[in-house]
Amino acid sequence: MALARVLERPEPHSKRRLRLWLRLYGATSVIEREMRRFLRTDFATTLPRFDLMAALERAPEGLTMGELSRRLMVSGGNVTSIVAGLERDGLVCRRSPASDRRTSYVALTEQGRAAFVAMAREHERWIDQLLAEVADEDVEALTDLLAELKHKAEARAEAGRLR
Amino acid sequence: MALARVLERPEPHSKRRLRLWLRLYGATSVIEREMRRFLRTDFATTLPRFDLMAALERAPEGLTMGELSRRLMVSGGNVTSIVAGLERDGLVCRRSPASDRRTSYVALTEQGRAAFVAMAREHERWIDQLLAEVADEDVEALTDLLAELKHKAEARAEAGRLR
Repeated sequence: MALARVLERPEPHSKRRLRLWLRLYGATSVIEREMRRFLRTDFATTLPRFDLMAALERAPEGLTMGELSRRLMVSGGNVTSIVAGLERDGLVCRRSPASDRRTSYVALTEQGRAAFVAMAREHERWIDQLLAEVADEDVEALTDLLAELKHKAEARAEAGRLR
Repeated sequence: MALARVLERPEPHSKRRLRLWLRLYGATSVIEREMRRFLRTDFATTLPRFDLMAALERAPEGLTMGELSRRLMVSGGNVTSIVAGLERDGLVCRRSPASDRRTSYVALTEQGRAAFVAMAREHERWIDQLLAEVADEDVEALTDLLAELKHKAEARAEAGRLR
């Protein structure tokens, strides 16, 4: 009787939201782990490096170190050391505009851009294969729902009422 | 005319799957970043520590280091050093069963379990607030779709046909 009452009690909303987060985190972790492996074996590179080059590819004028930090999605990567490594490999360069010698911008070199474009093509092909079994309508539904989720979580976090 | 043709051309499936991955990664990154902040400010702890304690909480008998590594979702965390830190703080202990002195199991101490339960309660409350604006039906739909996505990506990755 007591057990039946427990089983019938509707699950609280907080438990469902927690489960959603665990699913989100779990799904991302599986793909991310495979992607790190793919980037390492096929391109001898890392996810933070790939991520940083992707941010630069979308900003042909270059980005300051501060802008780069904010745009990177991968946490834990140290922007300064990643930029230094890419610079050593000739994939990025730093430059200061004549109008503002104190600000330094990081940008892809021609070699860096070519390397990124080649990686990005393979990356797209790889994701396409990894998610090949997901139905088209589920891809659409998930894409929309995740945009909404991200937007709402960001708004909530920015409102700073999370205590 | 040429532009109109480009605009009308249906977007290839690979592009849509890539966009889904970027949304998934972006949504997770936003929440993860806020969560790292929350764990740091409210519990002076880190996501890898929290994650490791969560894995141990689900395994009262303890886990070997190998099992722990496989169950952790956070990448980049060094299991050995996280366990050593938690052991120093009295939150986990290592023990070997009398029947097999060579295998060592990591388990939560009583203090560790109590600390985790308190954190997990706040963590659930925090996620509930962060996702408060997401409609209930979207929570359900996303939870189901993400389980499906994770399952399919895992099956594909295990089949090892990703080249």
